[in-house]
Amino acid sequence: MIEQKEIVLPRFSRGFHLVTDWVENQLGKLPEVGMVNLLLQHTSAGLTLNENADPSVRTDFESFMNHLIPENHPVYTHIYEGSDDMPAHLKSSIIGASLTLPVTNGRLNLGTWQGIYLCEFRNLGGKRRIIATIYS
Amino acid sequence: MIEQKEIVLPRFSRGFHLVTDWVENQLGKLPEVGMVNLLLQHTSAGLTLNENADPSVRTDFESFMNHLIPENHPVYTHIYEGSDDMPAHLKSSIIGASLTLPVTNGRLNLGTWQGIYLCEFRNLGGKRRIIATIYS
Amino acid sequence: MIEQKEIVLPRFSRGFHLVTDWVENQLGKLPEVGMVNLLLQHTSAGLTLNENADPSVRTDFESFMNHLIPENHPVYTHIYEGSDDMPAHLKSSIIGASLTLPVTNGRLNLGTWQGIYLCEFRNLGGKRRIIATIYS
Repeated sequence: MIEQKEIVLPRFSRGFHLVTDWVENQLGKLPEVGMVNLLLQHTSAGLTLNENADPSVRTDFESFMNHLIPENHPVYTHIYEGSDDMPAHLKSSIIGASLTLPVTNGRLNLGTWQGIYLCEFRNLGGKRRIIATIYS
Repeated sequence: MIEQKEIVLPRFSRGFHLVTDWVENQLGKLPEVGMVNLLLQHTSAGLTLNENADPSVRTDFESFMNHLIPENHPVYTHIYEGSDDMPAHLKSSIIGASLTLPVTNGRLNLGTWQGIYLCEFRNLGGKRRIIATIYS
Repeated sequence: MIEQKEIVLPRFSRGFHLVTDWVENQLGKLPEVGMVNLLLQHTSAGLTLNENADPSVRTDFESFMNHLIPENHPVYTHIYEGSDDMPAHLKSSIIGASLTLPVTNGRLNLGTWQGIYLCEFRNLGGKRRIIATIYS
């Protein structure tokens, strides 16, 4: 059985945000055993799994990713959409925009410390849309 | 229902190339609702989603990834297959070699600005093979 | 048909380790055609595909990733779990913690040179658990 849903995340500020509850609420009832594929339909944001406990991990993600992939780097030529645009595209492909997750006993079967991060790489990113495909 | 296909991409030059049409053409008719997994069977190239409009994004990807993961870095010991080889392996794992994408109304359900990039990290990479697994 | 299994990998030292045989052995009999999703349930380790032949590739991965994402970087604030902790979280999201792989003729259908790497980013990482979801 396959089911698809569109999940819309509200506008988040630039940074890394824990959205596990948002996603689970919008997924609704899940099968006993299966899998969920989440595709973020954007090229300047990302989805990843990481620590769901200490918020300093998410702050450090934002700081370090800005260091690793800086704005205004001399090699950039794609600059007319703002200094945050090309770094956002690069971060999106380095972090990834899609997750495929197991479902067990009607719940996402993540590790104890794993949560879903929405990685908002733009200064003013707007709402973000995810296509969820649920298999059972 | 499951179907598998082998997709062969022609030799591309080193760089980031939009291959959405290539992939869709070789996938052929897709189910109304489902999912496609694409596995690139190589360790010195990658598959990712990013902007399908302005070619300068793809040029900047090539420039910045070469800056981030340079050739001839002093830590490399795996050097006998050419100066582009070890960076290609690193880029392949950082960008990833696989995508799992939703299918809706018989089409890949990507965002408006999303396209599939073949990331060719070798100077002379040759043809690249993808195993496509289609679920419905 | 869906089947789920829990795979436990023994403790590996910090570094990149070829675990294709470990994973295949614990997966057991696979369907003729299908797909396997592997989710590593940890936030300081990763799963990726890369070269299965020359061990120097794995050594260079460890060296270069330590260079790219160093310990004790001045931007880190999440430091009380050890100097290897925040870099491990960053590496986990940059490399990824999940793989979705095709199954053909009862085997993982990887490229000739592709193997599954467990990327252990902690100094003392302990056993690592993977949830395998097998579709056919």
